[in-house]
Amino acid sequence: MAASAAALCKVRFMARVVQKFGGTSVADVERIRKAAEKTKAEVDAGNEVAVVVSAMAGVTNQLVEYVGAMSPMHDAREYDVVVSSGEQVTTGLMALALQEMGIQARSWLGWQMPIRTDDSHSRARIKSIDSSELDRRLTAGEVAVMPGFQGITEKNRVTTLGRGGSDTSAVALAAALNADRCDIYTDVDGVYTCDPRIVVKAQKLDRITYEEMLEMASQGAKVLQTRSVEMAMNHGVRLYVRSTFTDGDGTLVCDEDEIVEDQVVSGIAYSRDEAKITLVQVPDRPGVAAAIFGPLADENVNVDMIVQSTAADGALTDITFTVAKIDFDRAAKLLGDLQQEIGYEAVIADSSVVKVSVIGVGMRSHAGVAQLMFKTLSEKGINVQVISTSEIKVSVLIAEEYAELALRALHTAYGLDAD
Amino acid sequence: MAASAAALCKVRFMARVVQKFGGTSVADVERIRKAAEKTKAEVDAGNEVAVVVSAMAGVTNQLVEYVGAMSPMHDAREYDVVVSSGEQVTTGLMALALQEMGIQARSWLGWQMPIRTDDSHSRARIKSIDSSELDRRLTAGEVAVMPGFQGITEKNRVTTLGRGGSDTSAVALAAALNADRCDIYTDVDGVYTCDPRIVVKAQKLDRITYEEMLEMASQGAKVLQTRSVEMAMNHGVRLYVRSTFTDGDGTLVCDEDEIVEDQVVSGIAYSRDEAKITLVQVPDRPGVAAAIFGPLADENVNVDMIVQSTAADGALTDITFTVAKIDFDRAAKLLGDLQQEIGYEAVIADSSVVKVSVIGVGMRSHAGVAQLMFKTLSEKGINVQVISTSEIKVSVLIAEEYAELALRALHTAYGLDAD
Repeated sequence: MAASAAALCKVRFMARVVQKFGGTSVADVERIRKAAEKTKAEVDAGNEVAVVVSAMAGVTNQLVEYVGAMSPMHDAREYDVVVSSGEQVTTGLMALALQEMGIQARSWLGWQMPIRTDDSHSRARIKSIDSSELDRRLTAGEVAVMPGFQGITEKNRVTTLGRGGSDTSAVALAAALNADRCDIYTDVDGVYTCDPRIVVKAQKLDRITYEEMLEMASQGAKVLQTRSVEMAMNHGVRLYVRSTFTDGDGTLVCDEDEIVEDQVVSGIAYSRDEAKITLVQVPDRPGVAAAIFGPLADENVNVDMIVQSTAADGALTDITFTVAKIDFDRAAKLLGDLQQEIGYEAVIADSSVVKVSVIGVGMRSHAGVAQLMFKTLSEKGINVQVISTSEIKVSVLIAEEYAELALRALHTAYGLDAD
Repeated sequence: MAASAAALCKVRFMARVVQKFGGTSVADVERIRKAAEKTKAEVDAGNEVAVVVSAMAGVTNQLVEYVGAMSPMHDAREYDVVVSSGEQVTTGLMALALQEMGIQARSWLGWQMPIRTDDSHSRARIKSIDSSELDRRLTAGEVAVMPGFQGITEKNRVTTLGRGGSDTSAVALAAALNADRCDIYTDVDGVYTCDPRIVVKAQKLDRITYEEMLEMASQGAKVLQTRSVEMAMNHGVRLYVRSTFTDGDGTLVCDEDEIVEDQVVSGIAYSRDEAKITLVQVPDRPGVAAAIFGPLADENVNVDMIVQSTAADGALTDITFTVAKIDFDRAAKLLGDLQQEIGYEAVIADSSVVKVSVIGVGMRSHAGVAQLMFKTLSEKGINVQVISTSEIKVSVLIAEEYAELALRALHTAYGLDAD
C-alpha cells in the first residue's frame, strides 16, 4: 500500500501544449536548436507538444520583395505560393532538431493536415483544422511540427494568413487540439506597458486581459497578431507570451476575472503604419459617407479613424480618415476615380502621423481617462488631429515627430512607470 | 474558294511543349522574366505550354547545408520537406511573370496535381502524374507552371527526386501530357563533345542518341539528370537541350535512326564525384563479393567500377571499387563494421581520382575504341587504375591531376576537335 501511495504521488498532471516560435527564434540552425530545447523541456515534463514555427527572420520579407519586384499588382494566389514557402523550411529543420535530441517528431504541412481557410488570399481566415490524426499521435507521444501562416482553400490552393499569421495558426491549433495552453515564444520576455525601446520605464505585465491585448495588438503593439488574440478569446485558449532566449513566466493573456490588480490603464500602444487622408470641400449631403467608404470597403481597404468637420455654411465639409500605409496607393487611386461622383475638391495625404492609444479595461468604470490624455498631450504642446475611442481605449492621431514625447508623458501620467 | 484556301494556308500546326528552366535560368527576378519570354514565344506561336522550374541557383545548396548542419544523419523525409521548398518559390514567381505578360498562367505544386512517387525519400522515382486537369487547361490556353524535383508518396509525404531531378519532372510531365517536345533550358547552348571549359575545341552536337546521352549523364556530364534521359528514351519524349540566354536549336536527344552522321565516339565525359576504395588482403573465397557488395546495396550505396586483382597464392586478393563521394562516409563505416565478417586486412581510400569515359553508339560496330583510349593515355604517361566498359562506353579511373590532360588528348585522338 505504501508503495502504491508513493507511486500515486509521482503521478504528474500531463498537459497538452502548443508552442509557437517566431522568426527571430528560428533565425538560424543554432537558434532552432535552442528553440527545440524549449520543446524538449515540455516533453521531459511529460507533456504532449505541438510546435508551430515561423519562417527564419528576414525570409518572408525577402519573398515578399521578390513578388513585389516581379509583379506590383500581383495575383494574391501566387503571392501565397511564394511567401508560404519560408515556414516549410523551418518546419522540416525543427523536426530534425527534435529528432537529433531523441524526440519522436514529424512535420505536418498546411495541406497535409489539412488546415482549411477561406479564399481571401494573403489574408485568409482559418475555417477548420482536421486535427484527428495529430490528436492520436500526440497522445502516442509524437511531437507534431507545423508551419504557421499557411493553409489551403476548399479548392486546394495555398493561402496565407497575413503578416504575423503564425500566432493565429498556433492559437487555432491549440483550440483544435483542446490544448491546455499556447506558448508564443518571441524575442521579448512578455507584454509591456509600452514599447521598452522608447519608454525605458515600461514594465512587463504578468497578466493582461484578452480585450486589452486585442486592443494593444490592433493599435500597433506587434507582439501578437490581432486575430490570434481574438481567436484565443473566443475559444478560451490560455496564451503565454514568453522569450525563447531567457527563462521566465512571460505574460499570460487571460480572462478579466483571473486578474486581481485594478489598473485603470494597462498599456500604451502606438502605430506608425497609418496614413491620413483628407477630402477637402466635400458636399455635405446624405449618402456622401457611403459613397466614400463603401467603395473603399469593397476594395478591402480598411478605414480606421474618421472625423468630419462641421460645415459652417452647411454645404461643404472636410472629411479626414486613416488607412493602413500599405493600402494608401490603392485608396488614393480609388478616390481619384471617384472624384466626379463624390464631388470633393482636393485630396490631402499625410503619412507623417502616428496613432497613440491608451488601453485598459478599467476605463469602463473610471471617468476622466480620455481627459487626462488630452491634458497631458496639450501640456507638451502636442496637437491632436483625430480621436477615436472604444469602451476600453482612447486613440489619437498626432504628428509623427511627437511620438516618443507623447508615449513617455502618457506613461508617466497614467502611473505606469517602473520604480 | 480562294479565301478559304488562303485561310487554310494560315492554319499552323499547334504543338504541345514542356519547358524546363534550370537554376541559373531562374536565378533572380530578372532572369525569371527572361525565361518567361521563352514561354511567351511558344504561346505566341500558338502552342500549348507547361513550364517546370528549378529552385533559384544556390537555394537548394543552402537548404541542403541547413539540413546537414542540423542533422548529419538526417531523416530523409524531413530533408525532403526542407529542400523541396526552393522550387515552390520560383513556381509562384514564374506564374506571376507570365501573368505580367498578359498570359493566363497558374502554379501547380507537386501535391496539387498530384505527382506520385515511391517512398525512396531524397531519391524518389515518379510513379504517376495525374495530368487530366492540366490537360484540360492547356487545351483551354492556360499555361501551367510546376515545381521540378518534388512529388508526394501514397501517404502524402513530400519527396524529392535527387539532384537534377527537375529534368526528370519535366520529362515525366511531357510523357504524361503526350507533349510534342520537352525543352530543357539551361546556361549552355546544348550538349558538347566534352566540357568546353576544359576542352576549348569541344563542339556542340546537333543531335545525340538517348543511349549516348544516358551514358554521358551517368558518366558525369551534368547537363541532364540520368533518369530524365532514361525516361525520355522509354517514353519517346523528344528532348531539346538549349540555352535560356541565347537563341538557337540546341541539341536534340533522339532515336539512333534520326541521326545520319556516323561518328564512332560522340563525346567524352568525366566525373570527379567518385571515390576509390580498396580492400586489402581479402580471402579469395566464394561469396566474398556478395559479403561486401550486398550490405552496401542494402544501404543504398551504389558501387560503380569494380576490379579484383588476381590472387597470386590463390588465398588473398585485393578488391578495388568506386562509390559516390557523398556515400563514402557511410560506405566506410559499413565496411568497418564488416571487417571481421569479410576478413580483409585494411581499407585504403582515395578520393583524388577522376573517371573519364568515351561514349558512342558507333562502338557497337567498330573495334579498337578501347585500345585507342589506353594507347592515348599511356602516351601521356597516365596510369589507368580501374576500367569498366559497356556496349557504348569505356570508362577509366585515373589520378585527378591528369583529368584535363586526359580529356584533351582523348578529344583529339577520337577526332572530335573543332576545326
